[in-house]
Amino acid sequence: MKQSREGLLLVVSGPAGVGKGSIDGILLERHRNMRLSVSATTRSPRPGEIDGVHYFFIDEERFRQMIAENAFLEYMQVFNMHYYGTPRAYVEQELRAGHDVLLEIDVQGAMRVKESYPDAVLVFVAPPSMSALKERLIGRNTETPEQIEKRFATAYQEVRCMNRYDYIVVNDVLDVAVRRMEHIINAEKCRASRNQAIINEFAGGKDEI
Amino acid sequence: MKQSREGLLLVVSGPAGVGKGSIDGILLERHRNMRLSVSATTRSPRPGEIDGVHYFFIDEERFRQMIAENAFLEYMQVFNMHYYGTPRAYVEQELRAGHDVLLEIDVQGAMRVKESYPDAVLVFVAPPSMSALKERLIGRNTETPEQIEKRFATAYQEVRCMNRYDYIVVNDVLDVAVRRMEHIINAEKCRASRNQAIINEFAGGKDEI
Repeated sequence: MKQSREGLLLVVSGPAGVGKGSIDGILLERHRNMRLSVSATTRSPRPGEIDGVHYFFIDEERFRQMIAENAFLEYMQVFNMHYYGTPRAYVEQELRAGHDVLLEIDVQGAMRVKESYPDAVLVFVAPPSMSALKERLIGRNTETPEQIEKRFATAYQEVRCMNRYDYIVVNDVLDVAVRRMEHIINAEKCRASRNQAIINEFAGGKDEI
Repeated sequence: MKQSREGLLLVVSGPAGVGKGSIDGILLERHRNMRLSVSATTRSPRPGEIDGVHYFFIDEERFRQMIAENAFLEYMQVFNMHYYGTPRAYVEQELRAGHDVLLEIDVQGAMRVKESYPDAVLVFVAPPSMSALKERLIGRNTETPEQIEKRFATAYQEVRCMNRYDYIVVNDVLDVAVRRMEHIINAEKCRASRNQAIINEFAGGKDEI
């Protein structure tokens, strides 16, 4: 008998600047078996954004149609304007093929995913401290002080929700954080609840001598 | 903030011959932070058994006294004769000191431990197949054919209980099985439920700028 070969849906959240992107990038590079879930949105592409890589850019009519078809694992409308959603088909197809799927999403989205796909594993990437997070946001040098303040206020809301996650990974040292993620993935594949095939095999006595 | 530094109680079960001893031995050798829980028993030491290493050999009066004092995490009486039990004090003291404690015990004992210490992590070490297990039992060359048959019958009962465990580790390749155990330990230390200190720190806003 083999340990579970079923793909794992790994949902990753954490405040802006915490290093989710770096962690995900290394995971995807190291594990050929891993796929990144790409969201769909009705907003226009920003400069440099590629359709199918950063988002699937679709129009509102198509988005509404997909909602009606239950084609999203989760979706939301931001400010009564743009829609964002996680297309269900890609995720489910990759999981069935035995690939692990990485889904980077905010706290509210993560909760919606857990509801529609309870087998998902939710990981919150936490900063070593809020002051460390602020330093990183400032250090990125990509935002105005006002934008940083706004991001930081959001971060405060987000870290208060980390108790709703299955795991908390503190990103103090990037490589340590990546290893923690890898161990979580490997451990989850050993969970009894994910190895019903092995349990059945031994319980059923099919493997008689 | 640091990930949980609290010790983990790792309860390991599996049929005779599955390789629990080899896995535990390597874990204890590799991780200075890990302790092996030693059981107490009222039976006499067998040749080569050392008090405090293989068992704590105590008399029945002392054992009954310890039961009365709730000094066992779990205990049982075998065939209305000898008592076996897991002394609570050693385990709790090591966990508090931040050491992980390894407890090798049968299925019934594992269930009793989970009841008295719900934070325990239960791992069932499974053979690649029942025929592989039988080959290993025969290959050990330490038992008579009758003893092997008896052990094998017990093994059949045991593998039917693996669904009650948190994790199933198939011991196909020893080093892979050891690594799975290590990943389970590391992942469990990232569980949100074991990191209440981090959650409180961020929720309480103590870490203001």
